[in-house]
Amino acid sequence: MLEDILKRVASGEISPDEAKEKLATFENLGFAKVDHHRKKRQGFPEVIFGEGKDPSQIIDISRAMMEKKENILVTRVTQSKAEEIVERLSDFQYDHTSRTLFMKNSPEENHYKGYIAVVCAGTSDLPVAEEAAKTAEAYGVEVRRFYDVGVAGIHRLMAHIDEIRGATVSVIVAGMEGALPSVVGGLVSHPIMAVPTSVGYGANFQGLSALLTMLNSCASGISVVNIDNGFGGAYNAVMIHRIANQSS
Amino acid sequence: MLEDILKRVASGEISPDEAKEKLATFENLGFAKVDHHRKKRQGFPEVIFGEGKDPSQIIDISRAMMEKKENILVTRVTQSKAEEIVERLSDFQYDHTSRTLFMKNSPEENHYKGYIAVVCAGTSDLPVAEEAAKTAEAYGVEVRRFYDVGVAGIHRLMAHIDEIRGATVSVIVAGMEGALPSVVGGLVSHPIMAVPTSVGYGANFQGLSALLTMLNSCASGISVVNIDNGFGGAYNAVMIHRIANQSS
Amino acid sequence: MLEDILKRVASGEISPDEAKEKLATFENLGFAKVDHHRKKRQGFPEVIFGEGKDPSQIIDISRAMMEKKENILVTRVTQSKAEEIVERLSDFQYDHTSRTLFMKNSPEENHYKGYIAVVCAGTSDLPVAEEAAKTAEAYGVEVRRFYDVGVAGIHRLMAHIDEIRGATVSVIVAGMEGALPSVVGGLVSHPIMAVPTSVGYGANFQGLSALLTMLNSCASGISVVNIDNGFGGAYNAVMIHRIANQSS
Amino acid sequence: MLEDILKRVASGEISPDEAKEKLATFENLGFAKVDHHRKKRQGFPEVIFGEGKDPSQIIDISRAMMEKKENILVTRVTQSKAEEIVERLSDFQYDHTSRTLFMKNSPEENHYKGYIAVVCAGTSDLPVAEEAAKTAEAYGVEVRRFYDVGVAGIHRLMAHIDEIRGATVSVIVAGMEGALPSVVGGLVSHPIMAVPTSVGYGANFQGLSALLTMLNSCASGISVVNIDNGFGGAYNAVMIHRIANQSS
Amino acid sequence: MLEDILKRVASGEISPDEAKEKLATFENLGFAKVDHHRKKRQGFPEVIFGEGKDPSQIIDISRAMMEKKENILVTRVTQSKAEEIVERLSDFQYDHTSRTLFMKNSPEENHYKGYIAVVCAGTSDLPVAEEAAKTAEAYGVEVRRFYDVGVAGIHRLMAHIDEIRGATVSVIVAGMEGALPSVVGGLVSHPIMAVPTSVGYGANFQGLSALLTMLNSCASGISVVNIDNGFGGAYNAVMIHRIANQSS
Amino acid sequence: MLEDILKRVASGEISPDEAKEKLATFENLGFAKVDHHRKKRQGFPEVIFGEGKDPSQIIDISRAMMEKKENILVTRVTQSKAEEIVERLSDFQYDHTSRTLFMKNSPEENHYKGYIAVVCAGTSDLPVAEEAAKTAEAYGVEVRRFYDVGVAGIHRLMAHIDEIRGATVSVIVAGMEGALPSVVGGLVSHPIMAVPTSVGYGANFQGLSALLTMLNSCASGISVVNIDNGFGGAYNAVMIHRIANQSS
Amino acid sequence: MLEDILKRVASGEISPDEAKEKLATFENLGFAKVDHHRKKRQGFPEVIFGEGKDPSQIIDISRAMMEKKENILVTRVTQSKAEEIVERLSDFQYDHTSRTLFMKNSPEENHYKGYIAVVCAGTSDLPVAEEAAKTAEAYGVEVRRFYDVGVAGIHRLMAHIDEIRGATVSVIVAGMEGALPSVVGGLVSHPIMAVPTSVGYGANFQGLSALLTMLNSCASGISVVNIDNGFGGAYNAVMIHRIANQSS
Amino acid sequence: MLEDILKRVASGEISPDEAKEKLATFENLGFAKVDHHRKKRQGFPEVIFGEGKDPSQIIDISRAMMEKKENILVTRVTQSKAEEIVERLSDFQYDHTSRTLFMKNSPEENHYKGYIAVVCAGTSDLPVAEEAAKTAEAYGVEVRRFYDVGVAGIHRLMAHIDEIRGATVSVIVAGMEGALPSVVGGLVSHPIMAVPTSVGYGANFQGLSALLTMLNSCASGISVVNIDNGFGGAYNAVMIHRIANQSS
Repeated sequence: MLEDILKRVASGEISPDEAKEKLATFENLGFAKVDHHRKKRQGFPEVIFGEGKDPSQIIDISRAMMEKKENILVTRVTQSKAEEIVERLSDFQYDHTSRTLFMKNSPEENHYKGYIAVVCAGTSDLPVAEEAAKTAEAYGVEVRRFYDVGVAGIHRLMAHIDEIRGATVSVIVAGMEGALPSVVGGLVSHPIMAVPTSVGYGANFQGLSALLTMLNSCASGISVVNIDNGFGGAYNAVMIHRIANQSS
Repeated sequence: MLEDILKRVASGEISPDEAKEKLATFENLGFAKVDHHRKKRQGFPEVIFGEGKDPSQIIDISRAMMEKKENILVTRVTQSKAEEIVERLSDFQYDHTSRTLFMKNSPEENHYKGYIAVVCAGTSDLPVAEEAAKTAEAYGVEVRRFYDVGVAGIHRLMAHIDEIRGATVSVIVAGMEGALPSVVGGLVSHPIMAVPTSVGYGANFQGLSALLTMLNSCASGISVVNIDNGFGGAYNAVMIHRIANQSS
Repeated sequence: MLEDILKRVASGEISPDEAKEKLATFENLGFAKVDHHRKKRQGFPEVIFGEGKDPSQIIDISRAMMEKKENILVTRVTQSKAEEIVERLSDFQYDHTSRTLFMKNSPEENHYKGYIAVVCAGTSDLPVAEEAAKTAEAYGVEVRRFYDVGVAGIHRLMAHIDEIRGATVSVIVAGMEGALPSVVGGLVSHPIMAVPTSVGYGANFQGLSALLTMLNSCASGISVVNIDNGFGGAYNAVMIHRIANQSS
Repeated sequence: MLEDILKRVASGEISPDEAKEKLATFENLGFAKVDHHRKKRQGFPEVIFGEGKDPSQIIDISRAMMEKKENILVTRVTQSKAEEIVERLSDFQYDHTSRTLFMKNSPEENHYKGYIAVVCAGTSDLPVAEEAAKTAEAYGVEVRRFYDVGVAGIHRLMAHIDEIRGATVSVIVAGMEGALPSVVGGLVSHPIMAVPTSVGYGANFQGLSALLTMLNSCASGISVVNIDNGFGGAYNAVMIHRIANQSS
Repeated sequence: MLEDILKRVASGEISPDEAKEKLATFENLGFAKVDHHRKKRQGFPEVIFGEGKDPSQIIDISRAMMEKKENILVTRVTQSKAEEIVERLSDFQYDHTSRTLFMKNSPEENHYKGYIAVVCAGTSDLPVAEEAAKTAEAYGVEVRRFYDVGVAGIHRLMAHIDEIRGATVSVIVAGMEGALPSVVGGLVSHPIMAVPTSVGYGANFQGLSALLTMLNSCASGISVVNIDNGFGGAYNAVMIHRIANQSS
Repeated sequence: MLEDILKRVASGEISPDEAKEKLATFENLGFAKVDHHRKKRQGFPEVIFGEGKDPSQIIDISRAMMEKKENILVTRVTQSKAEEIVERLSDFQYDHTSRTLFMKNSPEENHYKGYIAVVCAGTSDLPVAEEAAKTAEAYGVEVRRFYDVGVAGIHRLMAHIDEIRGATVSVIVAGMEGALPSVVGGLVSHPIMAVPTSVGYGANFQGLSALLTMLNSCASGISVVNIDNGFGGAYNAVMIHRIANQSS
Repeated sequence: MLEDILKRVASGEISPDEAKEKLATFENLGFAKVDHHRKKRQGFPEVIFGEGKDPSQIIDISRAMMEKKENILVTRVTQSKAEEIVERLSDFQYDHTSRTLFMKNSPEENHYKGYIAVVCAGTSDLPVAEEAAKTAEAYGVEVRRFYDVGVAGIHRLMAHIDEIRGATVSVIVAGMEGALPSVVGGLVSHPIMAVPTSVGYGANFQGLSALLTMLNSCASGISVVNIDNGFGGAYNAVMIHRIANQSS
Repeated sequence: MLEDILKRVASGEISPDEAKEKLATFENLGFAKVDHHRKKRQGFPEVIFGEGKDPSQIIDISRAMMEKKENILVTRVTQSKAEEIVERLSDFQYDHTSRTLFMKNSPEENHYKGYIAVVCAGTSDLPVAEEAAKTAEAYGVEVRRFYDVGVAGIHRLMAHIDEIRGATVSVIVAGMEGALPSVVGGLVSHPIMAVPTSVGYGANFQGLSALLTMLNSCASGISVVNIDNGFGGAYNAVMIHRIANQSS
């Protein structure tokens, strides 16, 4: 667009001052491409990080999005906060486990081939695992859940390993000692997004133990996001899943 | 293959005892697929983590690999250790900056479309950035280097941002405050592998500062590997690059 | 004043014993200059750190100040505590976001030239940023706010960079990865007061991540205050702003 | 023995003063039983922690032990230190990998039934694993080594799991992410002594990562010793192995 | 069982497909032995980690166990949660100090010889010590309690040392400086399970102080479990106690 | 006393069995002297650490002490807990600031010469400083308080330095940066007990900052107790104060 | 300059393509002002961070600067490295204490009014203090040194306090407990740049103690730079000193 | 002296200006008393902290002290540094274990009654223990050493406990788990100076483990100095020992 503007200056269509003003908005410089890429994501949900925002803030942001006919995902919403929001925006659906609100506004459906595996050990990691799963689903990606496969009972993991192998990418959620990504990493050949959780006690130190385990993994193909960041793990997985689909 | 074995038992081709022995090797159970996936990687280099191994250990492992006609990459090799190895295995080429040894044994060439961006701020991060770059190249992937683009001089980054955007995936290496992935993350829409380095002094605490920065990034699409783990960042990037190519 | 006292001793106006008593108060020794400097600050607000003080303590201190016709700023006041105080001292005005109380008692106005920039990324850093802004304003300094300019959307920062450059000094407030001061530091040539916030989750460790990022910044001109210390960042900025005005 | 002494006082055989002196040595009070238990350990090696002792100190201590016809194990001995010692005490045998010196002085052989498993992932953990193995062997216990069974290649572990299960107790040595004890803990039903090693780099923090992993293990039956403490892990395992043998 | 299945395939009794399905359950591969060992533990309680589970989850899990006529131990149950559970499953007995629920469903009694010592310093460590004691008792092992024997009053410890020595294994629970296992370790010759507690204040750092003390103990025979992990310490002790009984 | 017992055995006054029983109580072995020293402390208060004990526990312990006519000091008692206790034991007096309960049961008065200085910077350190002061007073020692003398206003400290110098020992309580002991340490020549407090915010890390400052002090004569341990600082100071008095 | 370019396009002086190329260099967009500000700094030294660079790298960079007739300051240069450099670039002068090289190439002199105070406690902080002092002098600012004024001997500080007060800004360098900035901060009314050093031992933890002390200072007007960052402290001080001079 | 000056002003002996100059030196204000107290310490050694000083610096400082006929103690001197110093100042005597140099210049002898106990567990703590012992002896205090009394062999401690009890104050040096002060603290009734050492490995973290143990000790009467600070522990003990002697 810079080119366009310059040509219009050359032709006298616009004055240098008008051109300067346009350029000042940065809409048409290097930064414009950011928005171009954003355009390509249409039909995707906007995501609101709900923690630290009060219900009215979330409602305001949501209303602005609803006008653009975008799907909306709100993460980290407590039950009581959710109830207050749903009372006023009844199209939101609250999921208790993942603590997410979701509203479908766009008629478009994304049809990606393949699926993402979300893997975790047990009940205590469920909130983070489900935040990941709901996020990926909100992005239109099929998710398969493997939720009772901790390293201390490895036969349960082995019983499902073929189906996990079939995924494009795995999001592996683990608290306590956080060893699950290492073990799965040795059994599959696709990328793994490892999400440490703050589940544990004593020398767990709010997830530090699991985080360090994952960063130090001797298995290849593992990369790590922040503690309890189910959204981030899923977002990164979706990016890869889309790459796998784009090219085909 | 389990199926095959069972059928041959049923047909009497092999005895139950022979079958049991075969199964005991785990070559044909669930684990077999690991090796199957490994087969698909033929022509890929084997990688030896050189730190903590003495020259004779590296030479022994390398000789075994040479017989299989595989390319060999050795990481974390000091100059003096490298000289000792090259003296006896003269097909190895040593790269001073990345501290890697590479030997080409396979005639096969990998022809992937597209390229990976390896991005870092300056001279002190070069060893880790080059470890990443050499690793990706050893895997047959084109690498483009962007090596003078720290956040404190953001115009240099902007001058190259279009070419970085063109990559399938970026490996971003940063020490000191480690803010580069956050900034790039806001300007591109592909996955970012963030590699913190131990470069810095004072309250850097051997890379902890950069590691925490990257884990806490408010930009989406960033996942993190261990401090100074240039190899890991590149390996994960190559996995994604191959996914982008596989499907096409 | 030491000189005065000694002369009065020499002249016999006061006895050595009386002189000794006077000197014992330290009002007239080296320390006196502290008070002299304090005098020069008249018309400036007294600041009360409200955290850990109960309403009646704050009211008592405030009443003593009111007699001296000084403006009063109270920081770190919760809503409920504020309501209790305002009920009894109705001249106080409470600001919800910055959690500050302010009372104007002095008719004097400070007329400094120029302005201070208070910069932060988003909604969650607002309480600390506003504590900084309200503090500077209480000291009579013009503040310009730049509140939606995080590093992950750098075009928004660039849209305002000229106005930020025009400030005497910037107070930059950032949680999460804390990279904003580094980026701004590369784009302006005035001093930057960096204020890390405890905003974040997981491996943020109550602001440690942002603190380390700022201390390790590779940009020049950045100095750092304690986590969440919006008051301190603003106070230091005001000192510099006054230096800029004093000399002109 | 207290009883004996008192009776001899009562009978006049010894004077109260003589009795007091005897009691003062604590040989015959509650503490005496410590030595009694020590007696029962005859034929066992004395162990010298070699780190921080110079060769002449080690030689002096060894000579005193040689007179008592005890086997001697010295741990943490560098090659150069070992050479200096062996030159003067040629009955010592140095083991390069475990960095231990051993001297057989007692003709007695311990004949325990069963064996201890020493398990580790790879070459870099060998020094600690071998320190454990040599310690257990010095105590007369059969050791079986499983040294290439990391969690990232779990089929290799499964190939040996029956033999590991056959042990009385396992000493599991792991650096990097330290996940091996968790996985083995889910596959065996005997006690596990977990030994974290300082092997790793970056966010490993000298073994802290592996230590935390092991303390937070979700598998039952795992207890932990200090980082790199191969001796301690083996010593505790030997105690249990002897319990298993004592009762039979 | 693998052998059986293969023979039945060879004889045509079952088809290869039926065999494959059976093997897929992993009941009859290497993993089967896990269950075999589990079988041997019949009459043992199932243990539910109550923290983070709501009463209805605990009730559901308990009901499933009741059908198998297993004893049930639930750890980490708050008083209010316990009341809610007992109201619906009145066979549960709640112990206030150890915060455990226990239900006896199995008529079998375990008759082990000998006892385990549970040792701690004082009132503040009681919850963890009692969690350990109740756990061991739930496993059918006799427990002797030594609860007022801190290192700062060593004569009280000495008064009981003979009885402590008589145990098969000691579980030693200590907060504050955590020195008790070191002192006891020098006075007994059986294995010690050291359990650090988070009791303390200031530089205790939630049990880190006691944990480090125990890991660094200069006494032999001490191994460590996670902070506040009374269950784990007792479980590991029971394993050793059973070894002592098995062989006799 | 051991000597006495032995003599009585020798004289036949008591039998060896009776002697053994006596010795078994440890009243008359090496440990006896502990109690001897304790005897010498008669008229001293017993001190109960109230944190973590419920009112009925405190009441029970207190009643036992009341029978021995000992003064009783209870530290770390919240207001509500105190009210519950005072209702039933009305001789207790509660001090709000120091959170202590005190009951005078012994008619004896301790008459030590000299005084202890308790020094702190401001209002937020008062609870710890007063815990120290009340403790020393409960032990019968005169306390002089210097409570508004922080290092950032050193003239206030200087105004009182002569009186501080006159103390036998100083207990210096400081939060925030904890620099006060260093400054006072350079101005006095008596021992200093430094008590870090957890007062502060941000990078204070619950008193770690002040603790490290005090441990690293470049002034001589400073020793340190745990964070917020006002009782401990005072107790150690009283020990020294008594030494100063004993000899005179 | 954007304006100029646009006008020249409008007048046909340059084509849109030529304009685009010019703009692409970012020399004339928003970023240009960075360089404009840089221009204003002419006559200022370029500073090379010498740590981690080998002599030939430093020589190459220096030669490029020499052509621009700029003064050159190289920090963090070891003696041996310095000798190698001076041998080839004999205009460099090495200062042993501050470990800096300086070369004067510009005939211009900066004539600022006033001075900066560099304050530290003793011999061990000298390298960092001198790095600060040499940096400020290289920038043409007068420096006054106060080097024996630690908090444990506060009378030495008081003897110089008037002269310190006379400075525009103080750079205060302190290791050990790092309390000096707090004390000076209470005695002066100008801004303080606090530089923690890694000098100390034990619980100093490489400067962490001093860093935390400074961040937690209860004195106003203190901001902090990284551990041992004498250059950074001085650079920030020079920025303020120039503001004081610009306006006059 | 202030009084003197004022009187001389009153009498006209000196002018107000002369008086002002005198007072400006601070020799005769409040600070003077510091020197007065210092005077009282004559005959005491001056102590030089040798670490980080080169031999010529130590020699220069020593020569200045020699002129004042003071005894000189230099701590933290390596063997090679010591040899260089002794070659030029042959009156220095080097002690290998404590790494101290001592020179006797003052004919005065200090005759204190009683002794200080220096207690440690074993060979590895000897350097710190001996630094403490040599320091106390240099101050003229009798030292009794108890060097093989670790908590893991408590009968050895009990064998010496009477003699330890006889001391005025104990300096207890401990590395590893650092539990010795707690145990001794329960057996003696005099003050204890606890000195953690950096001896240990693994999770010792350079003495942090022992430091935390000592700070959290549940025994009364323990105060703590910095890691490895044998000098500090002894200095504080000497202060108390002198108090005990002064009064008698």
